Amino acid sequence: MKMVEVAQSILGERLHNTPATSSVKAFAPTNIALCKYWGKRDQELNLPVTSSLSISLGDKGATTIIRMSSDAHDHVSLNDQEIDLASSFGKRLIVFLNLFRKTRDKFDIIIHANIPIAAGLASSASGFASLVKALNELYQWNLSTQELSILARLGSGSACRSLWDGFVEWHAGVRADGMDSFGEKLQATWPEFCVGLLLVSEKEKEVSSREAMQRTIETNAAYQRWPEKVTKDLAAIKLAINEKNFELLGKTTESNALMMHAMMLTTQPPIQYSTPETLALMQKIWRLRSEGLPVYFTQDAGPNLKLLFLAENKVVLAQNFPGMEIVQPG
Amino acid sequence: MKMVEVAQSILGERLHNTPATSSVKAFAPTNIALCKYWGKRDQELNLPVTSSLSISLGDKGATTIIRMSSDAHDHVSLNDQEIDLASSFGKRLIVFLNLFRKTRDKFDIIIHANIPIAAGLASSASGFASLVKALNELYQWNLSTQELSILARLGSGSACRSLWDGFVEWHAGVRADGMDSFGEKLQATWPEFCVGLLLVSEKEKEVSSREAMQRTIETNAAYQRWPEKVTKDLAAIKLAINEKNFELLGKTTESNALMMHAMMLTTQPPIQYSTPETLALMQKIWRLRSEGLPVYFTQDAGPNLKLLFLAENKVVLAQNFPGMEIVQPG
Repeated sequence: MKMVEVAQSILGERLHNTPATSSVKAFAPTNIALCKYWGKRDQELNLPVTSSLSISLGDKGATTIIRMSSDAHDHVSLNDQEIDLASSFGKRLIVFLNLFRKTRDKFDIIIHANIPIAAGLASSASGFASLVKALNELYQWNLSTQELSILARLGSGSACRSLWDGFVEWHAGVRADGMDSFGEKLQATWPEFCVGLLLVSEKEKEVSSREAMQRTIETNAAYQRWPEKVTKDLAAIKLAINEKNFELLGKTTESNALMMHAMMLTTQPPIQYSTPETLALMQKIWRLRSEGLPVYFTQDAGPNLKLLFLAENKVVLAQNFPGMEIVQPG
Repeated sequence: MKMVEVAQSILGERLHNTPATSSVKAFAPTNIALCKYWGKRDQELNLPVTSSLSISLGDKGATTIIRMSSDAHDHVSLNDQEIDLASSFGKRLIVFLNLFRKTRDKFDIIIHANIPIAAGLASSASGFASLVKALNELYQWNLSTQELSILARLGSGSACRSLWDGFVEWHAGVRADGMDSFGEKLQATWPEFCVGLLLVSEKEKEVSSREAMQRTIETNAAYQRWPEKVTKDLAAIKLAINEKNFELLGKTTESNALMMHAMMLTTQPPIQYSTPETLALMQKIWRLRSEGLPVYFTQDAGPNLKLLFLAENKVVLAQNFPGMEIVQPG
C-alpha cells in the first residue's frame, strides 16, 4: 500500500511513538477552491491531475478531539452523531488512522464541524486537516505544516489546503509518491475579500465528489481541456490576488466552477449538483451583476453557492440574500 | 450581397415573375433538432459548421398567408400582433422578401403559429419555411423541395429542415455559396416515436440563438470539440432511427443537447437558458428513467424541454407531466 510508504517516509522512526497525552484537540478551517481540484492522477494517494487554489474560511471548519480509549474498538462521532465504521467514510477514516498507530491504540474521536457536512462545503477537508493536526500533537511528531499537508491529503485531497489561513495553492506535483504534492500559503492578503455562504440544502449529496470526478475522467472527452483551463485560470487568479483585481478574480473563479459543472453535465450518466434553487440564485447573481454590483459565485460538488464580493458591498449583499453567512477571511 | 446571388442562381429568370394570384397560404411544421445546429460558418447565408438532424412536429407549426397589398408599405402580423418592421426580426424579414420581389410588390403577411414564439420551439423555422412555400406559390416558381430548403435557410438556418415531415437531416455542405447545404428527408419512419412538449415559459428569450451560438464560437475554446461530437452523435442517431433503438436515440439526443448547453454555460459571459423549473423537470426525468421508464429530453435555446418516449409509455408520461402536449409525428 503506497499510503504506508508515504507515512513511513515522512515519519520514519516516529511511527513508533506512543501517545504523549490522553486527549488532544485541534481545529482546521474549511477551504473554498477558487480554482477547482477535479480529477486524480492517483486514486490511493489523492494526487491531483492539476494544481488548485483556495481561500480558507477563518473560524469556519472542524474541531477534532482525540481521546485515548480503553475500549476494544474505536468510536467516532461527527456533530454528536456516531459514525458507522463500516460506512465508506468510516472505513476511509480507519484506514487513515491505521497508518499512524499501533493496533493497541484505540480512539474516541469527536469531530465538530460548524459547516454543513458533505454538501459541497468541504467539511471532509477541514475534518482530515484537523485530525492530522491532532495526531501530530498526540504522537508528538513535530511535523512541518507542509508535511502535515501531505498526510492530510491521504485522507481527503482538498484537506491538504486546510492547513493554512488565507489563500493556499495546492501544487499538483509530478512525483509518483506525491512528496511534491502539498499546499502552500500565498504571501498576499486581501482584507476586503468576502465569501458569502448561501445554503440551498444541507442534505448529503447523492454522488460523492470522489465518484463524480472519476466519472468525468472516464466518460467525458472534454476533460482533456480541463488541465489547460486550470493552467490559465490559476495564473489569472494569482495575478488577480496580487493586484487586488476583483473583477478578474471573480470572473475567472466563476468560469472555473461553471466549466467543472458543465463537464459533469456531459458525463455519462450526467451529474447535476444544482437544484432549481441553485439556478434561481445564479440568475439573481447575474442580474445583480448586470445592474453593476460586482458579485460572483463559485460552486462545489453540491447545490450551495459561495458568493465572492468586497467588503464595501457587504450591506447590499446581505439585503439581497437574507440568511447568507458572510465570512471575511483575508 | 451573397444572398442575392443565391436567389439569382436558384430562380434565374423566375425572379422577374409577377404574382400569379392575390392571396396564397402555406403551412410548415416546426422541427425539433435531435442533433443540434450550433454555430455558423457563414453568417449571411446561415451556413452551419456541422450537419444536424431533426424531427418535424406534424401539424404543429406556422401557417403563412401572403396577400398582395395596395398600401405603400408591408404589414406583417404574427399571431394577430403587428410586427414592427424596424425590429430585428422585422428587418430580417424585409431583407428576405426583397430578395424575391419587385419594389412595387407590397404584402400583407399574416403568420399564425400554433407553438410559442421565440421560446426555443423553432417558430422561426416553421415561419420562414411556410413563407417560402407561400412565395413559391405566389410567384409560381415550381421549385423542388430541396431548392425551397436552400431559400428557407437564408431566412433562418433551421427553417431548411421544416420543408418535410418526419426525420430530416440538414447537410452542412462545404460550398461557400451553400448550394449543397439543405435538408433531406430520411427514408425511415418510426410511428411509435413521441415528442412531448413541456412548456416552462412562453416568454421570449433574452439572448437569441443567433447571438448565443456566435458568442459560443467566439469565446469558448470548448467549441472545437463540437464538430467531432456532432459527427459521432449524428451517426448514432441515424443508426438508432434505422434500428428503432430507442435507448441509443434518447441517450445520444440528450447528451447532444446537454453538451450544447454546457458550452453556453462556459461562454463569456455565460448563457443559461434553463430556469429553475427546467432543472426540476430534468431531475424528474432522470429520476423516472432511473426507475425504469425510458424517457429522455432535449432542450433548445429556451427553457422548455421536449421529451422523447415511445407510444407505449404515453399514458404514464401524461400522468407524470400533466399539461404536456404529446405529438406523435412519425
